[in-house]
Amino acid sequence: KADIATELITESTCRQWSQPLRRDKASHKGSHGHLLILAGSPGKTGAALLAARGALRSGCGLVSLCVPHLLNAIFETALLEAMTIPLRNSPSFIGIADRDHILEAAINKKAIVLGPGLGTNPATAELVLFLYQQLRQPLIIDADALNILASHPHQVGEPAGPRIFTPHPGELGRLANVTVREIQDNRLAATRKACTLFKRNDHQIIVVLKGAGTIVAVDNGMAMINTTGNPGMATGGMGDVLSGIIGALICQGIEPLQAAAMAVYLHGAAGDELLQQQGVGYSASELADTLPSTIHTHIRQRKSNEECF
Amino acid sequence: KADIATELITESTCRQWSQPLRRDKASHKGSHGHLLILAGSPGKTGAALLAARGALRSGCGLVSLCVPHLLNAIFETALLEAMTIPLRNSPSFIGIADRDHILEAAINKKAIVLGPGLGTNPATAELVLFLYQQLRQPLIIDADALNILASHPHQVGEPAGPRIFTPHPGELGRLANVTVREIQDNRLAATRKACTLFKRNDHQIIVVLKGAGTIVAVDNGMAMINTTGNPGMATGGMGDVLSGIIGALICQGIEPLQAAAMAVYLHGAAGDELLQQQGVGYSASELADTLPSTIHTHIRQRKSNEECF
Amino acid sequence: KADIATELITESTCRQWSQPLRRDKASHKGSHGHLLILAGSPGKTGAALLAARGALRSGCGLVSLCVPHLLNAIFETALLEAMTIPLRNSPSFIGIADRDHILEAAINKKAIVLGPGLGTNPATAELVLFLYQQLRQPLIIDADALNILASHPHQVGEPAGPRIFTPHPGELGRLANVTVREIQDNRLAATRKACTLFKRNDHQIIVVLKGAGTIVAVDNGMAMINTTGNPGMATGGMGDVLSGIIGALICQGIEPLQAAAMAVYLHGAAGDELLQQQGVGYSASELADTLPSTIHTHIRQRKSNEECF
Amino acid sequence: KADIATELITESTCRQWSQPLRRDKASHKGSHGHLLILAGSPGKTGAALLAARGALRSGCGLVSLCVPHLLNAIFETALLEAMTIPLRNSPSFIGIADRDHILEAAINKKAIVLGPGLGTNPATAELVLFLYQQLRQPLIIDADALNILASHPHQVGEPAGPRIFTPHPGELGRLANVTVREIQDNRLAATRKACTLFKRNDHQIIVVLKGAGTIVAVDNGMAMINTTGNPGMATGGMGDVLSGIIGALICQGIEPLQAAAMAVYLHGAAGDELLQQQGVGYSASELADTLPSTIHTHIRQRKSNEECF
Repeated sequence: KADIATELITESTCRQWSQPLRRDKASHKGSHGHLLILAGSPGKTGAALLAARGALRSGCGLVSLCVPHLLNAIFETALLEAMTIPLRNSPSFIGIADRDHILEAAINKKAIVLGPGLGTNPATAELVLFLYQQLRQPLIIDADALNILASHPHQVGEPAGPRIFTPHPGELGRLANVTVREIQDNRLAATRKACTLFKRNDHQIIVVLKGAGTIVAVDNGMAMINTTGNPGMATGGMGDVLSGIIGALICQGIEPLQAAAMAVYLHGAAGDELLQQQGVGYSASELADTLPSTIHTHIRQRKSNEECF
Repeated sequence: KADIATELITESTCRQWSQPLRRDKASHKGSHGHLLILAGSPGKTGAALLAARGALRSGCGLVSLCVPHLLNAIFETALLEAMTIPLRNSPSFIGIADRDHILEAAINKKAIVLGPGLGTNPATAELVLFLYQQLRQPLIIDADALNILASHPHQVGEPAGPRIFTPHPGELGRLANVTVREIQDNRLAATRKACTLFKRNDHQIIVVLKGAGTIVAVDNGMAMINTTGNPGMATGGMGDVLSGIIGALICQGIEPLQAAAMAVYLHGAAGDELLQQQGVGYSASELADTLPSTIHTHIRQRKSNEECF
Repeated sequence: KADIATELITESTCRQWSQPLRRDKASHKGSHGHLLILAGSPGKTGAALLAARGALRSGCGLVSLCVPHLLNAIFETALLEAMTIPLRNSPSFIGIADRDHILEAAINKKAIVLGPGLGTNPATAELVLFLYQQLRQPLIIDADALNILASHPHQVGEPAGPRIFTPHPGELGRLANVTVREIQDNRLAATRKACTLFKRNDHQIIVVLKGAGTIVAVDNGMAMINTTGNPGMATGGMGDVLSGIIGALICQGIEPLQAAAMAVYLHGAAGDELLQQQGVGYSASELADTLPSTIHTHIRQRKSNEECF
Repeated sequence: KADIATELITESTCRQWSQPLRRDKASHKGSHGHLLILAGSPGKTGAALLAARGALRSGCGLVSLCVPHLLNAIFETALLEAMTIPLRNSPSFIGIADRDHILEAAINKKAIVLGPGLGTNPATAELVLFLYQQLRQPLIIDADALNILASHPHQVGEPAGPRIFTPHPGELGRLANVTVREIQDNRLAATRKACTLFKRNDHQIIVVLKGAGTIVAVDNGMAMINTTGNPGMATGGMGDVLSGIIGALICQGIEPLQAAAMAVYLHGAAGDELLQQQGVGYSASELADTLPSTIHTHIRQRKSNEECF
């Protein structure tokens, strides 16, 4: 396996991928993609909101969230710039009973985030397994959606599009049926192996193993290691923001693998800015709100004499 | 048509129109107009809230929103400075069943915003068509209200006052029954033509075609092209804020055509400030909150030795 | 009446009154008074919240709001530092059916704000008239409570404690049954006269006539004219914040007349700071949040070598 | 008792205890502990939210709140980074009927805050007395939980783990059945005595007597006096934030006694920063949000050439 590339994710690599982020003066909100987020349940709506906030702050054109209808007011009050789609048949947990409504909602979306704060009850599990097979768009699979796939290994079917898994080591352990120790002893190998685990057809399987030196691997063996971030990010909600950033970058036209890698870089870089400003204790909401300046500093650096941004 | 004026909207032109914004020391909240906003439905309350925030930050004296009564708590929690009027007969969508209540609410208002996040169901459509004909005040027609007019072309009656349409190219395409391509190929002509499409009587028809170089045209052929703004504004909620600014400027005594032109200028200028400060990813809420300093910098520049502002 | 004093309210006069604001190192939240606010109804909860915010930012020890129980969640979500008392018998409007609950809530309070966003329905009116006679504490009477007193002139009984009226000219016109023109032609005389109108017994009647050069008059003919403020304050919610400041200053031990005068000074000075920072369009919430630094600059100027603040 | 140590709590002492706060680069949110908060009732949800905010801003890995299910939406809307556990059998007040659910929620938690805004009704009292005996984790007991213990002196059983009481003088008076005057006359003796009052077995009893010069005493007679803080902290919500900080520091591995002492130091130091920035009138929310920089300045001072924070 000596010929398999392992790269560092740096500002320089991110810039190479950033061409789609350049905005033509005549661009409109439709030009920058519409992200769909399937997330949130009682006690965990914050996870869904943080994913949406991460996406909006990364330049996504539009963000919609499918939400259990009894929780809709929470979402509407807490975030004005996203839209919600209250699911008629899902009072508190998003479930299979709303599959048609969700497929309809997915039609014009460029990427879909599935999982933050979703819960793992049977109707939700059935939906996650169904969408995994049905949705043609890149699907960012996080948190409870990962746990559902982990507990139904034999029901994980063929994906209809690229799939980006974003586990932390505990979630990857459950997915790959290995111990956290085994993963942490060789994070690179574990992440690569996880890609092959879910490989079924031509569609790309990308695994993002979170933690210090986040790894992004794809099913051809290629893997990248992130160079940003700090332990102040080891707090609730940070992972939710990351899933939103990945979705937003795909919506803006970046390829899923590069989007995942650039997202972990920007996510860590925003955390690094906040650590300098405040010290440990900065919040996931603040990290999301820092993203515009992080992206500007590291990626965009608009040249004032051009018509692009 | 060589004699038809086309002007740029610049700081200088905006200043020429800004006399009504000068405030006498003895002015009170009634002096600066009361705006009514008819907007919001499940999943899209943010649109209504952003319109209100745009209006308040542009110096409007008072802002009230007519809202579906089941959604009232969302509005009250998210924005303290506006008042709401929960509509008894409209649980989730504003509809014709509340027409008397709405006409009563409109009595002392100087301008009315109709449309952001309104939804397009039949009872709402009936109300929009009714108010289009009934309300004597300048009516800013945005988003779903535009879509309703577009799908009922033969039921659009005679307006009872000035009408300001604020479509993006997709909405104008539906209104004028042409393709987006045709519009974008000659934005100026398309906007002018749209004015004549709705002209029925003496009341002014103004069309604001959003996008890079927003165009403001009026039914006599006069058109203006905006010089501010950037593609970071291509994200959800920005248009809602604009409708609120137009309403607020009319409430403060500026003529509808000049109010529309000045609003697009200020809206773009606020976006330009945020692009400098943060880069792409700034939010519509932030754009609204930037307006006071934008207006101060570009328009008001209070002279300390005068009793006006 | 040549012997009746008319003074300007300046930083210097406010400082003379400010001794009770000096805080002993061993002071605790009970030392700085507990304010009760009776305010808010559907569509107007923001008024109550802004009064509470004004009070908390002026250094009040504790703030509680009696609220209609169906609206309780709005208050709790929007303001963490205040407590609420949901009224069992008042679903949407505070009314006479909760008089015992309210009297009990008033027991340990040092001042009470009555009126912002209260509504004027009959059960509310009955309560306002009842509390006007019953409460021994200084009562700050604003907005709808003023309108209720205005429409029941013959039922306004003897107050059981000091009463501070905070009308704008329209409200004073209704209270005194004169035109706004008559008031504005001689604001000083109109304010003084209004004091005598409500004078029934030994308890002080103070009238604060809002507007440019706010006047504070008391029933002995003494009147003061404020020197701060600007027309950017002519927007919704500003008056609600003022009522909270007056309440907070009384809670901290300042006499009602001086509290009213100092509150109008600080309220205007905070507005002046915001006008400098932003220009017109600053919000009532922001004005409340500016108060700590306004009070520090104008009044407290803590001497670092003393044990007081 | 001349041999019993009394120390000042200073930056220097806090730094000596701060080793567990140093973060390894590979740390994750599980490394920094999960805090459980049992708090909040109608009218007092702000207290629970402020405790959570204090904990999150002090670097806690995860924070969950057990909440009455009818109040759940308030918590979810107001704080995105914490999770909630809506209690099925507790509509408005947390009570004994949910004891099994709470014991289950407590399983993987490193510390538990009990009391802010909890209310004192019988079912809540029964729960507090039960958890006092059952929970093996350090339990931070504040506000209404203190009042419950005070009114059931003969039912306070043997604790199953360390117990940290955080009374203000009024609460300590009720707990120890003495007057506030007696306490304030000799705060040190009163705090030490209170420790012995609750001593039943080997588990540590720590008492934090709030007020100017907060005292932290433990049952072996050792006591410490805080050197930070100012009377601007004498306002609602400040104590709630403190309970969250104590919990967060224990979650991060600091021993309960040192956590309590360091928490009062940081809490006061954050208040001192805000007093300098704003003057009196800063809010408890702001104090929580100031903690990251306070901790950074006083404790962490990250050395850039190390892999720790």
